[in-house]
Amino acid sequence: MATAEPTSELLYLDDLRVGRRFRSGTHAVDAPQIKAFASAFDPQPFHLDEQAASRTVFAGLVASGWHTAAVTMRLQVDGGLPIAGGIVGLGGEVAWPAATRPGDVLHVESEVVEVVPSRSRPDRGTVTVRSETLNQRGDVVQRTTVKLLVPRRSQPNSALYTTEREDHE
Amino acid sequence: MATAEPTSELLYLDDLRVGRRFRSGTHAVDAPQIKAFASAFDPQPFHLDEQAASRTVFAGLVASGWHTAAVTMRLQVDGGLPIAGGIVGLGGEVAWPAATRPGDVLHVESEVVEVVPSRSRPDRGTVTVRSETLNQRGDVVQRTTVKLLVPRRSQPNSALYTTEREDHE
Repeated sequence: MATAEPTSELLYLDDLRVGRRFRSGTHAVDAPQIKAFASAFDPQPFHLDEQAASRTVFAGLVASGWHTAAVTMRLQVDGGLPIAGGIVGLGGEVAWPAATRPGDVLHVESEVVEVVPSRSRPDRGTVTVRSETLNQRGDVVQRTTVKLLVPRRSQPNSALYTTEREDHE
Repeated sequence: MATAEPTSELLYLDDLRVGRRFRSGTHAVDAPQIKAFASAFDPQPFHLDEQAASRTVFAGLVASGWHTAAVTMRLQVDGGLPIAGGIVGLGGEVAWPAATRPGDVLHVESEVVEVVPSRSRPDRGTVTVRSETLNQRGDVVQRTTVKLLVPRRSQPNSALYTTEREDHE
């Protein structure tokens, strides 16, 4: 992806255009982080133990794909995707073209690929964001396309901040 | 989905047929778990604080979607998806039709939807699994379709246990 636009302001649906890009800060992943996440959520040999992992298809310790997804989310919440009202994902696609390994320094590059104001709810819309999580060598360890619920600037009482419920819930 | 087949054996590509179903054990999600995951990976108000969450679109504390994904993975690793060689996901689709909330007791129901032996690597293939994560009321909190790398039984030196690397890495 091309150069991102650094920004500190929080963006509403009205501010987002197809093609707008963002770049997150970085996070260094180490073996203790990989093993801690795996112990809680994905206790498989290739995520828990270097020796056992060396005899698997991964040829060494690798992070759970869901750990890579979680680190990606943290990088986006910490400024990598400055959406007003927070990052509320409805779903999308995820792929792990390469594994995250100990010592990898990850960052996320994101691009707006669709902006759709709601026809029934004038206070909101959906924004589809395509993101790549890259390591220090530029290898893509995760690729996602996620649809987000985003408030409109023009509505002072955005439903994202009221007790109204979403239709989909 | 219909009744699952409980099984304790680990299944190879050769054992899996389209339509085969699996059902995991259960996991109870509470507020401390939700806040701990969010503090590490998704520190947004609706995942961290009941009071702040009550004023958002969720009308109360909810788990990060990636937390629901991580709990789903744990339930599948703990017998919900007994694949030989482990659960190695290449990617797929994820949706969160409803949020996971404190007190929810989750389980996962999975179904094999595609089995494709590799044409170039006789020791493996891919299996696509569609899963639903449900709470105690039967609400679907996550729906995934994930492509998995699965070894063949007929190959004693399955590459999942050697140091060979995948083409896609």
